[in-house]
Amino acid sequence: SRFYVNVEGKLISYMEAIKKPLNVAAANWAASAWLISKKFDNCVFIDIGSTSTTIVPIVDGKVSVKGFTDPEKLVYGELVYLGALRTNICSIVSEVPYKGLFARVSSEKFALSGDVCLILNKISVEDYATETADGRGRSLRECLDRLSRVPCADNEILNDSEIVEIARYIYETMVFKIFKALIQVRTRILSLGYDLNGFKVCTAGLGSFLAKEAALRAGFKDIIDISSIYGRKISQVFPAYAAALMALERLGK
Amino acid sequence: SRFYVNVEGKLISYMEAIKKPLNVAAANWAASAWLISKKFDNCVFIDIGSTSTTIVPIVDGKVSVKGFTDPEKLVYGELVYLGALRTNICSIVSEVPYKGLFARVSSEKFALSGDVCLILNKISVEDYATETADGRGRSLRECLDRLSRVPCADNEILNDSEIVEIARYIYETMVFKIFKALIQVRTRILSLGYDLNGFKVCTAGLGSFLAKEAALRAGFKDIIDISSIYGRKISQVFPAYAAALMALERLGK
Repeated sequence: SRFYVNVEGKLISYMEAIKKPLNVAAANWAASAWLISKKFDNCVFIDIGSTSTTIVPIVDGKVSVKGFTDPEKLVYGELVYLGALRTNICSIVSEVPYKGLFARVSSEKFALSGDVCLILNKISVEDYATETADGRGRSLRECLDRLSRVPCADNEILNDSEIVEIARYIYETMVFKIFKALIQVRTRILSLGYDLNGFKVCTAGLGSFLAKEAALRAGFKDIIDISSIYGRKISQVFPAYAAALMALERLGK
Repeated sequence: SRFYVNVEGKLISYMEAIKKPLNVAAANWAASAWLISKKFDNCVFIDIGSTSTTIVPIVDGKVSVKGFTDPEKLVYGELVYLGALRTNICSIVSEVPYKGLFARVSSEKFALSGDVCLILNKISVEDYATETADGRGRSLRECLDRLSRVPCADNEILNDSEIVEIARYIYETMVFKIFKALIQVRTRILSLGYDLNGFKVCTAGLGSFLAKEAALRAGFKDIIDISSIYGRKISQVFPAYAAALMALERLGK
């Protein structure tokens, strides 16, 4: 039989799924978090992919989200529409450092978060697997050129070092946005009466370097990446792996 | 004779000083930077005191500021009106994390940056030498109580852990503001044609922990505090010490 994972982290049948489509849309996080909750009783799971960041609190061995749809998650800091590759720079910052001042940014899709992460050596050319803003390549040169266009400049107006400073500024803003969502989730866990000192962070996804940095700043001390638990290969397809295990459990195998 | 340090980092007489009072007002930074420039050819001097942050680029052994008055410095990122003790919280953040959501802040002077720094163990009770927001003491308990009032709460509505999260959020915002000014100054140095890899950072003042954190995030690698050069005692009165050395040089001693 064919199963679907719904937002309550349960496997449902095809017939149930088409009756409540919103319950299975964007429910990848539910499968992943279900599997993590089998491993850690108290944990915040942070999955940063190419496009977005998902934060799932796991409390007393149970997935304990407050938002069940994307807009609800955006309200409660459980979803940040910011990823390591595909995010338009103009949705991250409204100005960038420019020759001792700040320049406003263009609202065109001139460059993406992947350009910033590659320029700062946080990802490799191979990691940069999604389409670029201008359809050109993923070399350092091409990433620098794209980023220079964000304040409507080019690689003659700005030298490479000047473009790197723009990347640094955008990167720090990215970390801050994820930090802010994490602090929000932390205060919710506290309001439930729990002690955050017992909470691990479990990171996943291409952007786990961002998750780790933000988690440290938020005060978490015990941070582990799923690749060090499940290995690199499984980590890259973690939601599918988790859903498969869920199906096996349901089928009693 | 009596000398005054002006904003060009020169000693002038009393008669010259009263002719151009703006040239000697708030010129402490000029004396300090003059002395640092004798030590390091290429350096960014960051002095974070109780009330404000001064950033002085030193290029080729010369103080190389773009702003000579406070408003000019505020424009160019050479002055940030943010210090480690006396800054009103409502000038740092407009909202704070609150039980899984964010609450707007009161615009009263309910708490200061010193409360945040003490709660997070960045400063000691002895370091907190300025007046508090409510005139009461500087104990951890009193700092927590004051900070709880920023979102118009108190220590019954918020427990201590919840108040610590508010402190973390404010602290990260403080680091980001100083980081942003530093990146601005870095892009100005680059626009003059220099390579930032040759630049040290020299920190000073009670808030040097903030300066160090912001400098690392901005990409500086070689960071030194003046107390490790001149010792703790001289560092605490550094502008006066620098002005005295300037006077000795002028008098040819």
